[in-house]
Amino acid sequence: MPTVKSFKTNQATSFIHHVKQQRPLVHCITNDVVQNFTANILLAIGASPAMVVAEQEVAEFVTIADSLLINIGTIHSNIATSMLLAATKAQQTQTPWVLDPVAVGPALNYRTEIAYQLLSLKPTVIRGNASEILTLNGQNSSAKGPDGQDSTQSALNAAKELAQKYQTIVAVTGDIDYVTNGNNVYSITGGDIALTKVTGTGCSLSAMVAAFIANSPDPLSATASACFMMKKSAELANKQQGLGTFTVSLLDQLSLFNPSL
Amino acid sequence: MPTVKSFKTNQATSFIHHVKQQRPLVHCITNDVVQNFTANILLAIGASPAMVVAEQEVAEFVTIADSLLINIGTIHSNIATSMLLAATKAQQTQTPWVLDPVAVGPALNYRTEIAYQLLSLKPTVIRGNASEILTLNGQNSSAKGPDGQDSTQSALNAAKELAQKYQTIVAVTGDIDYVTNGNNVYSITGGDIALTKVTGTGCSLSAMVAAFIANSPDPLSATASACFMMKKSAELANKQQGLGTFTVSLLDQLSLFNPSL
Amino acid sequence: MPTVKSFKTNQATSFIHHVKQQRPLVHCITNDVVQNFTANILLAIGASPAMVVAEQEVAEFVTIADSLLINIGTIHSNIATSMLLAATKAQQTQTPWVLDPVAVGPALNYRTEIAYQLLSLKPTVIRGNASEILTLNGQNSSAKGPDGQDSTQSALNAAKELAQKYQTIVAVTGDIDYVTNGNNVYSITGGDIALTKVTGTGCSLSAMVAAFIANSPDPLSATASACFMMKKSAELANKQQGLGTFTVSLLDQLSLFNPSL
Repeated sequence: MPTVKSFKTNQATSFIHHVKQQRPLVHCITNDVVQNFTANILLAIGASPAMVVAEQEVAEFVTIADSLLINIGTIHSNIATSMLLAATKAQQTQTPWVLDPVAVGPALNYRTEIAYQLLSLKPTVIRGNASEILTLNGQNSSAKGPDGQDSTQSALNAAKELAQKYQTIVAVTGDIDYVTNGNNVYSITGGDIALTKVTGTGCSLSAMVAAFIANSPDPLSATASACFMMKKSAELANKQQGLGTFTVSLLDQLSLFNPSL
Repeated sequence: MPTVKSFKTNQATSFIHHVKQQRPLVHCITNDVVQNFTANILLAIGASPAMVVAEQEVAEFVTIADSLLINIGTIHSNIATSMLLAATKAQQTQTPWVLDPVAVGPALNYRTEIAYQLLSLKPTVIRGNASEILTLNGQNSSAKGPDGQDSTQSALNAAKELAQKYQTIVAVTGDIDYVTNGNNVYSITGGDIALTKVTGTGCSLSAMVAAFIANSPDPLSATASACFMMKKSAELANKQQGLGTFTVSLLDQLSLFNPSL
Repeated sequence: MPTVKSFKTNQATSFIHHVKQQRPLVHCITNDVVQNFTANILLAIGASPAMVVAEQEVAEFVTIADSLLINIGTIHSNIATSMLLAATKAQQTQTPWVLDPVAVGPALNYRTEIAYQLLSLKPTVIRGNASEILTLNGQNSSAKGPDGQDSTQSALNAAKELAQKYQTIVAVTGDIDYVTNGNNVYSITGGDIALTKVTGTGCSLSAMVAAFIANSPDPLSATASACFMMKKSAELANKQQGLGTFTVSLLDQLSLFNPSL
């Protein structure tokens, strides 16, 4: 069994700077609830978001994007076609891509089946909550909709197995984030419970992961760095005035983030 | 004619606590303008939103959700199919559900016809502005798009008749909110004109109603409680710095709301 | 060659008041990233937004709207059909309309072809960044996705040519905004770099232009006034606390804008 190593600030620094310097073009095919928040979070960290969704355009755009995000939160037939076309192209062109398998589980068979099809197209990283990672690994979960109730610790073994099975990186995020390639495991602690009370923080983290793995020689550390940046920004954000202010302040902190501090 | 009774703080208290304690899973099929705001408002009051829209998934998801919201604001053919499937299942499983008939009226026949089909599937609550309620009751309205110009008082009789005709609860909201089951009528006063200058406050109120009527033995008071909570939060929100700050502050107040104060 | 004239505060005043007084109904067919922000910005300046997208409804709604916005940011086949129906009707009814050709360019042929079809339906105004205007004028651009890299100055001649070719007004916006009908050119300076780090500021400016040209005898000055209002609001907005606060403050400033100051 691999040991879990705590991911440290100094490991994240260069990856955070890399995003700001490279300004990666992140092709996002994401859900309708979080499109605006995702785009603003990518801009805040220095990346360039592009939401391109038409069947006629997605494969073409993957070839010029630096990375791709696929998030199945509000999946329907048309967008599923676009997702499969984009992921197929990303596999061909070796464009790094992130799968966010929102709400997969026994209650939602259609998206679960599409998620398995996407898995077979070799995502670079899978980012999900514990319930989603358990489901993708063929285990039971307590999921009912997008807010899973399982602890990330309960899904750590599933994350490792999934990473090995698909030769990918799995980030299972929640109270403690775990990022693993099946051999090494990083943990990222901290953050704030308020992250679970704002829609799209997990979805936007997946988008940040896509930005971080663009042109990165070390996607495992890049993924952990994205998780680190989100958790630290949530710690710095204002949590005294309610959830509206917290959301605004989270964007503030991401945009002002200085990993050297 | 039923008397109008003012709905009081102490009547709302237990319903507001109920949502926080039960954390109802609210299945939302809503419009593309307000998805994010609606999800954040549901999270702010303690509910768990899930935007599930695929034809392949909606009926299945209704069976595990605690309540359902259908909002036709940006309706098109595909989503109309999903709406009708979801409402049909909700009627079968007696899952409480809310219809928000955004912008029905003479200028928009397609949605008006779909709204009548949805009406026949017995929503637990209809939440609309005066123009929308007048239209659903077969009367003339001055509506041109989502922002109706009629006063809620002018639609009170229509609300009562509609409630009786469909054995449902009707909430006609605006300057004064009226909530009626055709026999009893509650009024909720207060609020703030700024609510009409932020998109999605009505749509999100409909989502709050869906959260409040989940597992509730008294959907009439539950609906009035949701209206009460929105109006009081708007009163408490910061209106001095402009509409951006007001929107953030409204979310703050909803998330911090303490009905005992 | 027409001279470039700087557009002044006193030229904008009456147009800003006109929007507040007329409260134009702006029919928006826009992209999924910016729907909420666009609606809130239109409300903030005093207009009434209506997002109506169904094939069955768009032509009908154009006939009652005061103006129309078409933004192709997240275009796909179904919405393209609605866009073409709406623009066709707008041309017939002489309803003023704005085309925002988001991300047209060599990497995205599908939308570029639709944009040319829309162009042939005579938009009243085209509002785009430099890369988009260069592309529409048949020139090379450095565009990769929605964030073009070309300077507006490099696209000024393209803007004039495009305006003459299609007998329309072209607003090419960025560091300096230029607004031209092919004969006259206004420039609007100022603004803030933060506008480029928040998603949807360009898209929302196009919506503001749609509000300003509604029932206006002088669409050239109306368009310049919208650009002026956005740039000045960005100057007044809080830029010290990060991008979340800036976004909220931009909405605040638009809602409080007093052109007489």
